[in-house]
Amino acid sequence: MEVRNRYVATRRHIEGAPTEADFEVREETARWTPDSGEVLVRNLYLSIDPYQLNRMKRSSASHLAVDGILPGQRIAAYAAGEVVASASPEYATGDVVAGVLGWEDYTLFRPSPAVLMSKVDATAGGGFPLSHHISVLGTSGMTAYGGLFEVCKPARGEKVFVSAASGSVGSLAGQFAKLAGCYVVGCAGTKAKVDLLKDKLGSDDAFNYKEEPDLKSALKRCFPEGIDIYFENVGGEMLEAALANMNLHGRVALSGVISEYTGGGRRAAPDLLEVIYKRITIRGFFAWDFLPRFAEFNAAIGEWVRQGKVQVLEDVSDGLESVASAFAALFSGQNVGKKLVKLA
Amino acid sequence: MEVRNRYVATRRHIEGAPTEADFEVREETARWTPDSGEVLVRNLYLSIDPYQLNRMKRSSASHLAVDGILPGQRIAAYAAGEVVASASPEYATGDVVAGVLGWEDYTLFRPSPAVLMSKVDATAGGGFPLSHHISVLGTSGMTAYGGLFEVCKPARGEKVFVSAASGSVGSLAGQFAKLAGCYVVGCAGTKAKVDLLKDKLGSDDAFNYKEEPDLKSALKRCFPEGIDIYFENVGGEMLEAALANMNLHGRVALSGVISEYTGGGRRAAPDLLEVIYKRITIRGFFAWDFLPRFAEFNAAIGEWVRQGKVQVLEDVSDGLESVASAFAALFSGQNVGKKLVKLA
Repeated sequence: MEVRNRYVATRRHIEGAPTEADFEVREETARWTPDSGEVLVRNLYLSIDPYQLNRMKRSSASHLAVDGILPGQRIAAYAAGEVVASASPEYATGDVVAGVLGWEDYTLFRPSPAVLMSKVDATAGGGFPLSHHISVLGTSGMTAYGGLFEVCKPARGEKVFVSAASGSVGSLAGQFAKLAGCYVVGCAGTKAKVDLLKDKLGSDDAFNYKEEPDLKSALKRCFPEGIDIYFENVGGEMLEAALANMNLHGRVALSGVISEYTGGGRRAAPDLLEVIYKRITIRGFFAWDFLPRFAEFNAAIGEWVRQGKVQVLEDVSDGLESVASAFAALFSGQNVGKKLVKLA
Repeated sequence: MEVRNRYVATRRHIEGAPTEADFEVREETARWTPDSGEVLVRNLYLSIDPYQLNRMKRSSASHLAVDGILPGQRIAAYAAGEVVASASPEYATGDVVAGVLGWEDYTLFRPSPAVLMSKVDATAGGGFPLSHHISVLGTSGMTAYGGLFEVCKPARGEKVFVSAASGSVGSLAGQFAKLAGCYVVGCAGTKAKVDLLKDKLGSDDAFNYKEEPDLKSALKRCFPEGIDIYFENVGGEMLEAALANMNLHGRVALSGVISEYTGGGRRAAPDLLEVIYKRITIRGFFAWDFLPRFAEFNAAIGEWVRQGKVQVLEDVSDGLESVASAFAALFSGQNVGKKLVKLA
């Protein structure tokens, strides 16, 4: 079987903030044969995540863990789709799957334990909107759940700060922390997002960092008793301010540092005496670390979603042509919740 | 009993590099009475440690954990001395003790579980030179032992980098790491220190950071297989370079950041993507964290010293008048090993 496949590619390595002009839609013919061992998936929802920008750089520490993206080539990405042809006994035509596919109409994959791929009906008991499988039940949920419960190990009553708190991971981390019995404050970059945090996501408090002349003072106001846990998505000044407000034995889960991805903001240069004397632990992690526990995490998360205890924020654009603009918009904070692109 | 007590005090808060002129020797009368519950100690060896500089600042994160030092007042410090009068059943005249005393001729203390004080004969089986009780068997040993074994948890064959490796803590951390079966590289600021590391302290390699145009390249050369553990005493550029050379699941024990104490060097602004994608853990700690295990740590360390497996480097100045210059010299790297002042 041959299908005409359109895929999004970068035109060049991207070192600063991405723009639509950095991308193009290319075409190729994807060939599937019955003896290939491969599965051909028609993609239905694509996950649009900030970390992909690091892969697009000429060099980045992210390349140590995730392949760099070469200009002109297809871009592997988490997505959900429908199997249209299978040369694997594990998958049948019509199966709906979620896992590592690509920013493209069709993806061929070869099943292996090393490939993250699951059948949607089997995930967390099934019955969820397809989009959920690449947001709350995908890597965003895994990052938030693993980062909070495995890295931070929150105790009831602890004070948790979440930055980029209306984003794909932050919106879940904050809600999970509330479910763990914590006091939760989030920050975001617009009044609408701050209202959302307080009114819909259950944050005890929230602030718009763009309206705060001094982030340290803002955090002091929101955390009169100090911060025990910082779920870090931002980097730069925000990390410095959070460390300055942390309590003894504070924990920082370093999930992302979006303000540092584009090279536009300055890097965090925290007062390391804070880290020493408060005996703070800063730990980097990412979603793949929790792969062996994907089903377990998703069972817990799925139950919360089913019970209405976790609100799922999805921000959906339409069509493969919108991938570039959707991706670029992440870095100016235009998304609310998980950014997805729905294919026709 | 009344004794004329001379003590070292700061003349003002110190915000940059300290100089002798920042200090003065003052006098007071110390009064001990038989019903005071107090113990009067004549100090014999004083510990001179870089962290004291943070206490001398007007404000510092260190004040959260250790009291700030006010100009004109006596300065609490680890020291060893002889009991000359005791109103406590726990201590007798003639007992030799080590613990928190002060930069002064005599110190009065009131025994309590919260005060770190031990009788020298009972420490690690006894039989050590008195000076060892405030170096290898004091807070320096505790910091090195706890930081390495509790914070870093080294496995045999792991690659360990120690900065300020000929200093009080670094010289021990590196030797302890060798005893744990690790590959150890240290850095220091003179050729003599580098030779000492290689010839006397058993480092597998060592380099003079002042002669390296690029610290990242120096570490790349010394650690072709990357760094698993960084025992951090320096901060600034050194931390950035170490993180750039770390392996997956690397650990940084943040023991001190002497290059940042004086405000002269720039703060570390590490590439946090390194921390995320290598899943690095950076943890601050200090000696007091291990107080409950002081006797256990000292038993292990003392045995190594007795067997000649750990070399003890002590750099001794004479007389209370030399405290200020000895302290100031720490920040220009003039000491080798633990800096002590011996009183007459």
